[in-house]
Amino acid sequence: MIAEEYKQMLGKKSVIREIAEYGAERAKEIGYEHVFDYSLGNPSVPVLQAFTDKLIELASSSDPGAVHGYSPSLGIDSVREKVAQSLKRRFGMDYQKEHIFMVSGAAGGLAHALRAVTVKGDEVITFAPYFPEYDPYVNKTGAVLKVVPANTADFQINFTEFEKMLTPNVTAVIINSPNNPSGIVYSTDTLKQLAQLLQDKEKEYGHEIYLISDEPYREIVFKNVDAPYIATFYQNTITCYSFSKSLSIPGERIGYIAVNPACKDAALIVNICGQISRGIGHNCPPSIIQLAIAEVIDMTADLSVYETNMNILYNELTNLGFSCVKPGGTFYMFPKALEDDAVAFCKRALKYNLLLVPADSFGCPGYFRIAYCIPTEKVERSLNAFRKLAEEYKK
Amino acid sequence: MIAEEYKQMLGKKSVIREIAEYGAERAKEIGYEHVFDYSLGNPSVPVLQAFTDKLIELASSSDPGAVHGYSPSLGIDSVREKVAQSLKRRFGMDYQKEHIFMVSGAAGGLAHALRAVTVKGDEVITFAPYFPEYDPYVNKTGAVLKVVPANTADFQINFTEFEKMLTPNVTAVIINSPNNPSGIVYSTDTLKQLAQLLQDKEKEYGHEIYLISDEPYREIVFKNVDAPYIATFYQNTITCYSFSKSLSIPGERIGYIAVNPACKDAALIVNICGQISRGIGHNCPPSIIQLAIAEVIDMTADLSVYETNMNILYNELTNLGFSCVKPGGTFYMFPKALEDDAVAFCKRALKYNLLLVPADSFGCPGYFRIAYCIPTEKVERSLNAFRKLAEEYKK
Repeated sequence: MIAEEYKQMLGKKSVIREIAEYGAERAKEIGYEHVFDYSLGNPSVPVLQAFTDKLIELASSSDPGAVHGYSPSLGIDSVREKVAQSLKRRFGMDYQKEHIFMVSGAAGGLAHALRAVTVKGDEVITFAPYFPEYDPYVNKTGAVLKVVPANTADFQINFTEFEKMLTPNVTAVIINSPNNPSGIVYSTDTLKQLAQLLQDKEKEYGHEIYLISDEPYREIVFKNVDAPYIATFYQNTITCYSFSKSLSIPGERIGYIAVNPACKDAALIVNICGQISRGIGHNCPPSIIQLAIAEVIDMTADLSVYETNMNILYNELTNLGFSCVKPGGTFYMFPKALEDDAVAFCKRALKYNLLLVPADSFGCPGYFRIAYCIPTEKVERSLNAFRKLAEEYKK
Repeated sequence: MIAEEYKQMLGKKSVIREIAEYGAERAKEIGYEHVFDYSLGNPSVPVLQAFTDKLIELASSSDPGAVHGYSPSLGIDSVREKVAQSLKRRFGMDYQKEHIFMVSGAAGGLAHALRAVTVKGDEVITFAPYFPEYDPYVNKTGAVLKVVPANTADFQINFTEFEKMLTPNVTAVIINSPNNPSGIVYSTDTLKQLAQLLQDKEKEYGHEIYLISDEPYREIVFKNVDAPYIATFYQNTITCYSFSKSLSIPGERIGYIAVNPACKDAALIVNICGQISRGIGHNCPPSIIQLAIAEVIDMTADLSVYETNMNILYNELTNLGFSCVKPGGTFYMFPKALEDDAVAFCKRALKYNLLLVPADSFGCPGYFRIAYCIPTEKVERSLNAFRKLAEEYKK
């Protein structure tokens, strides 16, 4: 039988796609360089040269065993070891190989982590604005995703609302800092308060509440921003990392799950991830990519352009009267639209060849996302379009 | 909550792993070159040079958009197009891009295909001997796997038993030809009879029965063996292909699902596969690997060594009194053990540093698998070990 549950997912045409399609049409008419495409979170900076060099070296081998062979389902041993050592070196925590599971990007990591620590009927909490793909990751485990409303003052956690939503059915909490789409980084205060609350509730409920920390933007943090390593605050943390943004290789599907060494059942969770892979036919991330990232484990591409772009846009937009919390990292910015209906606002922006994404699907209506992972010269050329757009609302 | 369903999968230590571990220990003592490791289906022939060349060329690009960017969830358009054109050229069927879904190897293809066309309570049938990972692929959709007993005379399909097991609950049938572990290729007669039976039952039951054809060994077929393209026989065929064996790159996780253009809901099934990916956090197979295989789509590595190895082993083993159906393809051979208990037989073989796999987990007790994807000189050196092993049973 055709699986209706998946067929139904097809029905909904997303606004984001509609905007992307409009953009593609416009690009045909006026050239892509004249379309200010702020709609997609595709890294734009050149791939780290050391990664490219290593990849070429590995690709040059024709020995299927050495480079292109099956990886163990938990990941290549030497790669897991290097990831653990790097985390240990950088964050002073006692990660070992057995705490690391190699995954196909943060998406694969989140879906695995959720399957490992939730069962049918569990509740999982996350915080608006949030990445809408959390819905299928959670729902397909049989658990239910509950979303804490945004704290639009600073996009830190809305603890009052969060506490109201905590029940004994909550077994996992997903956070994403630096955050897509707000660009905000959770402060030390926020993380301390979060950890204390979860610890208290664990005691009260008599079971673990796993903190699943989605960290693809960990390496994109701007100057003087307080951005501590999240797992240091809370034992039962499962960190999901991706090299997509730090190395500019989102299509190569590589990341890891790092379970806090102090987490309850840490090594068991890693082994369970291997069994989850069996059920979905996911044998391992690509071997050659695992081997390549292991050699550049402490390095990143030159990510400085994102902060340059952020500053240009933040200054211009706030001058134009946009209300916006200054991003602490990522390549996203999250202003309030100039009318209540952000979809209508983003559609109006198309007139000026500006592709912006309304935040309704991120659980935060009235706001829009700017993905400024585009060349700086294009950011500069786009300012006039923003000016014209703002002008419309002054009439 | 820790997911018990996956935790329980961890409990069972497989005999295959036990044998592999013994082999690893022996290798430390006497050197790996003296261990005749016939336990693993890891391709041993050098990677196709044209693939390596293309991979180096692609890896040399530091433009994240051109090579390392996100692929659409159905696969890169140009790659899907090239796969479709290749199938059209080779098998004369009207495949188009919309019938192709790029996957992470045949494992990913099977798991996706099963999720697309089965729902909770459905029955899925396969034929012994069969790849034991079909169990988790099927069970995790909520369907139930039923296994038709082996036809040990020639390892074609046991139609009498198969027909008895067909019920209106059956919505999918999995076949694997050339077959792991028997090495047998289904004949034109078998496939015609299979197609006729399934068509009749579709009419009788009033619903589709999808034929899911697992074809990672399609390109390893020996001289003068009748090996027709399976989808030509039956409209509702979903072909799951992998480049792991044809190019010797199993770790790079690349393959495709090709839905027969005449299949009911063909394009819908492909789109549903994209939605299934969302639920498991599988965005796409690695972009660089997709781009590389597309350039060598009609080529394979030099696979001739497998037939050479097969002939050497088949001749020696049948001379020694083993009962064995001659393989038509793959790099597996499937003789009857020299005692009823194939596990005991394979444990005895360890004495001679022979790593063989008992076929109990393949649903065919009393037989064992030889994976002869090892260098020919090692095959030749191993013959004496087989002789000594056979000698034991003459006492």
